[in-house]
Amino acid sequence: MCTAIANHGGGLYFGRTLDYHAPMGEEIVVIPRNFPLILRRQPRAESHYAIAGAALVRQDYPLLFDGMNEKGLCMAGLNFAGNAVYLPAKSDKINLAQFEFMPYILGSCAFAEEAVAAIKDINITSDRFSADMPPAPLHWLIADRSRAFVVEFVKEGAMVYEDLAGVLTNNPPFPVQMAMLSNYMNLSPALPRNNFSKKLPFTPSGMGFGAIGLPGDVSPQSRFARAAFLNCNCSCGVSETEGVCNLFSMLGCVSVPYGCCAAEGGGFESTLYFSCCSAQSGTYYYLPRGGLKVCAVNMFSQDLNSARLARYSASVISSLCGGAEMLGGK
Amino acid sequence: MCTAIANHGGGLYFGRTLDYHAPMGEEIVVIPRNFPLILRRQPRAESHYAIAGAALVRQDYPLLFDGMNEKGLCMAGLNFAGNAVYLPAKSDKINLAQFEFMPYILGSCAFAEEAVAAIKDINITSDRFSADMPPAPLHWLIADRSRAFVVEFVKEGAMVYEDLAGVLTNNPPFPVQMAMLSNYMNLSPALPRNNFSKKLPFTPSGMGFGAIGLPGDVSPQSRFARAAFLNCNCSCGVSETEGVCNLFSMLGCVSVPYGCCAAEGGGFESTLYFSCCSAQSGTYYYLPRGGLKVCAVNMFSQDLNSARLARYSASVISSLCGGAEMLGGK
Amino acid sequence: MCTAIANHGGGLYFGRTLDYHAPMGEEIVVIPRNFPLILRRQPRAESHYAIAGAALVRQDYPLLFDGMNEKGLCMAGLNFAGNAVYLPAKSDKINLAQFEFMPYILGSCAFAEEAVAAIKDINITSDRFSADMPPAPLHWLIADRSRAFVVEFVKEGAMVYEDLAGVLTNNPPFPVQMAMLSNYMNLSPALPRNNFSKKLPFTPSGMGFGAIGLPGDVSPQSRFARAAFLNCNCSCGVSETEGVCNLFSMLGCVSVPYGCCAAEGGGFESTLYFSCCSAQSGTYYYLPRGGLKVCAVNMFSQDLNSARLARYSASVISSLCGGAEMLGGK
Amino acid sequence: MCTAIANHGGGLYFGRTLDYHAPMGEEIVVIPRNFPLILRRQPRAESHYAIAGAALVRQDYPLLFDGMNEKGLCMAGLNFAGNAVYLPAKSDKINLAQFEFMPYILGSCAFAEEAVAAIKDINITSDRFSADMPPAPLHWLIADRSRAFVVEFVKEGAMVYEDLAGVLTNNPPFPVQMAMLSNYMNLSPALPRNNFSKKLPFTPSGMGFGAIGLPGDVSPQSRFARAAFLNCNCSCGVSETEGVCNLFSMLGCVSVPYGCCAAEGGGFESTLYFSCCSAQSGTYYYLPRGGLKVCAVNMFSQDLNSARLARYSASVISSLCGGAEMLGGK
Repeated sequence: MCTAIANHGGGLYFGRTLDYHAPMGEEIVVIPRNFPLILRRQPRAESHYAIAGAALVRQDYPLLFDGMNEKGLCMAGLNFAGNAVYLPAKSDKINLAQFEFMPYILGSCAFAEEAVAAIKDINITSDRFSADMPPAPLHWLIADRSRAFVVEFVKEGAMVYEDLAGVLTNNPPFPVQMAMLSNYMNLSPALPRNNFSKKLPFTPSGMGFGAIGLPGDVSPQSRFARAAFLNCNCSCGVSETEGVCNLFSMLGCVSVPYGCCAAEGGGFESTLYFSCCSAQSGTYYYLPRGGLKVCAVNMFSQDLNSARLARYSASVISSLCGGAEMLGGK
Repeated sequence: MCTAIANHGGGLYFGRTLDYHAPMGEEIVVIPRNFPLILRRQPRAESHYAIAGAALVRQDYPLLFDGMNEKGLCMAGLNFAGNAVYLPAKSDKINLAQFEFMPYILGSCAFAEEAVAAIKDINITSDRFSADMPPAPLHWLIADRSRAFVVEFVKEGAMVYEDLAGVLTNNPPFPVQMAMLSNYMNLSPALPRNNFSKKLPFTPSGMGFGAIGLPGDVSPQSRFARAAFLNCNCSCGVSETEGVCNLFSMLGCVSVPYGCCAAEGGGFESTLYFSCCSAQSGTYYYLPRGGLKVCAVNMFSQDLNSARLARYSASVISSLCGGAEMLGGK
Repeated sequence: MCTAIANHGGGLYFGRTLDYHAPMGEEIVVIPRNFPLILRRQPRAESHYAIAGAALVRQDYPLLFDGMNEKGLCMAGLNFAGNAVYLPAKSDKINLAQFEFMPYILGSCAFAEEAVAAIKDINITSDRFSADMPPAPLHWLIADRSRAFVVEFVKEGAMVYEDLAGVLTNNPPFPVQMAMLSNYMNLSPALPRNNFSKKLPFTPSGMGFGAIGLPGDVSPQSRFARAAFLNCNCSCGVSETEGVCNLFSMLGCVSVPYGCCAAEGGGFESTLYFSCCSAQSGTYYYLPRGGLKVCAVNMFSQDLNSARLARYSASVISSLCGGAEMLGGK
Repeated sequence: MCTAIANHGGGLYFGRTLDYHAPMGEEIVVIPRNFPLILRRQPRAESHYAIAGAALVRQDYPLLFDGMNEKGLCMAGLNFAGNAVYLPAKSDKINLAQFEFMPYILGSCAFAEEAVAAIKDINITSDRFSADMPPAPLHWLIADRSRAFVVEFVKEGAMVYEDLAGVLTNNPPFPVQMAMLSNYMNLSPALPRNNFSKKLPFTPSGMGFGAIGLPGDVSPQSRFARAAFLNCNCSCGVSETEGVCNLFSMLGCVSVPYGCCAAEGGGFESTLYFSCCSAQSGTYYYLPRGGLKVCAVNMFSQDLNSARLARYSASVISSLCGGAEMLGGK
């Protein structure tokens, strides 16, 4: 369970919740231009666009969850279990393991349309990162400052869809999500209006009645509808802080508090972190579960020509973000 | 529009969103024990329990929106337009203006049951704070570490209800909200289960299906149902930070991002701030719209025997909380 | 569980479903003008308006479920368990047992407003019809060709409400039903329109999208909303047959097929019969569970000056209505 | 807009509503065994199974809407505009015009599985019946006493799905309808149960609370969910009349009263007729809009070896079914 939103109200603010039933061990990373990206079935990329994002780091390799490159192209992978289909390597394709797909695209594409074109030649294989790490069944939201696309590798093959709602959650496949979304086309942020009957002199007892019917649970299609309604109607403000706050505010509405959603193997699914990429400033914002302060890394404050991964671990972040900013004192 | 939640998972974490279509100009205040509380129709309270909260300060008088006293009693006022009825002064009652009600209760009661008993003798008048400030039509959520109550002054008189869901929003009156809530009794945080028909071999395509039907819009009764579902199922964790984060996380799910709810006079209703009182530590947490860091004041770090209001203005808070905690740098 | 609808599209077509978990043993009756109506605590009515309706007949007394008088005043009683309050006899009131209320009103009032005025002086007692027949906890829909009213005897006393939606089901009390109905004010019979977002080029995949959000279950408040939406938007046609068909068609949408709603004591609640009074012709239409033909009695085809109850038992009706009208044959 | 239901509770009762914005001019027909079925691109069928159903008759050719053959195989076509794809004739296929598909299948197949096998070789062409009658974009529900299948000719080709819910409406395609149906798996006909929270002592105020969330509008996916819930939970009774009544009762719940659903070109979509095939007796039951009595034709009461179409026109039916069965009289 996860929700991603690409908001184009003021450039691109691109964020996601990561929802899971156990800690993921993610770090914030900056992958500089000369950090060699090893690919299993392709020549390794010695240099590439720099990338900032959240990743699980194993054997010095960043298994990216979401991130942004120095050109402002953003990408997030979301669970798509049951529908994602990865295939054996094909001789006429660029064969990438699932975990190589995001760094490959962010490393080599400046624009969303460039990514879309590149995907035509890509085949995602079921290669494992390691014996105990099978490929994650994902689909992806990719956006630049102009457009957003969803990429799904399904049994019919690689499918790329323009995502005019700018959101992605999980199952069912994107075209079905959009078809189901049309059921909500009557909903509106506007003031309550009596369409029901002129015979009934309804006196609205509050505001927000125009969107009654919007679902409030955390199933994937309900989060999709809620996120789409918010993203299509909420604007991001003028400043970077406003843009980031607005995105976190929308993500808050589709987040999963601990205890409200049982997980399959016991325990509960809940939101582990919120992130937001500002394509304008190259800043990656991040708020972990249990954090009271958003932390951030500006890619351009880093040595982007380095060959070494910059890593900010959970414990570093937690010590910075775990408490509130205290006012006053005797 | 506002939502208040009293969560008893680990003591009392009590918070609210304040939703409005225009800035309120609120500050964080600590009202120390010897700050004289002037009452229009009662002898002024020279000394009283200390209080921390959010307030609009006019003529050095704190018009409280929500707050907590040094004993851990918490209280929030929420819009109740159309149902709140304030009456002329009565000779056999303690007559209080609407804006005096919260400081009076928090100043004089240590426990929720004490407040409930006191309310039996109280009459809320329609006295204005000033010529341009008519009384706000409110109802109140009051909680201590054990119990929560809702107080409504309606045409039938003063009504006090125990609030087992621990939440309050706006119209309709609380008993109707609870009656409507029972429509959702079938909803569950549990794993999806096929109650529909044994004939249909549903394969759940995700989690969260047990609460499908929970409303996702921001009308008062939908926020009430959503907040109740979350508050009854989400637990607060062990530590203070976990408790606060959990409360903010639930409030996030019922908050109103800017643009998704038109206001009656034009513009949009949206969440202006989130607050959370920890009755355990006496800390008042606060996150304004546009803030990336939660700020907080611990009541007991203040001089509680003072006679002067401690004030933390929006500009002070904004300069502390407006930006993210930056990681790294060259 | 029951639903009543008063449709004023072409005069008054007034009908109901009677939903229960066991056969009721009702008959169709015509109570002629000189059939003496015995009242427990009032002088008996030797003569009165004639009445046609459905009733359980015990000791030659018609315990009416619903009916219409010769002036076109219609009335139906619906379950209101938990909210109906009947009181001891009062010296300054016309004291009626619950089962006397409908014949009293239909026997003495020509117009709905006349009934409303009469109810001011009425007190419903908890007198039993017999040792084994306690009073039924009901509320009533009363309508003539111009207006409809709901009557509820609750703990606050006798309450009469004009019913602009023209429908009644069960709990909660009528004012709460109407308050809840306002949540659906956005729904419309109109063509699907995209209020959601101009960004999304929804192509409606069908019709009826304007009322998505209308509830489809058989709980009382859902049947209330559905019946209200239909009754406010569906028109009755010009002819008597069209009017009756339209009313049965709306009732069909809120009826309870056997097996879809478990009853408290085991078994299932389901619709036992549909009825429709035409105030224009004085005809009472009736379709029992298991019937394939609607049967009817025209009051004015009866001897209305008689003193004897005219009764049409279930077996008579079943033999007339149980089979289809067969076409053709070799 | 239309809804079809195949109920296997007591053999097979198979029925449908036909919903449209204008009269269709249908008749009830019996196509006897030796009525020659002319096929545009195949040799004509000189003899075949006899069929009873509803059809528009043009040039003595029955354009079937729904029907049943003498073996008890039933079939109904429902609107599938936007998704139905008919192709040019193919040399390796049995090429049938859309209007030939239903008589071909009902004329030649005794069982649903036999029909499914036959469909593998069939290509539906876009041949017109006449210059002014383009093919109708349909999909089909086919059922015998054991199983039900849905057939859709879409851009991916001919798709056949077993239909365990036994229902069909309109868009989206059947697999998406079933995927969406799984969102309702939590709904139940059972008594209200408090899954929400043990903290809240909900006292159910009525029955039917277990299915709150079931949609009540007439959009295709809402009718699909409602019909599926009813068909999976409602049983058909023992006798033929009970079976037919039960099916009509479920169809009533998904029917479209006039006025509640605007049509695209103006006016209103509404239910024009209800039908029900009893596979047990070979009887076709039919209730037109405006009818108060169900009429029926038993196939085996006809001369099934004839070569002439037996037709029962709307005016014949209307004169039989338009009025109620009158009780009593002076």
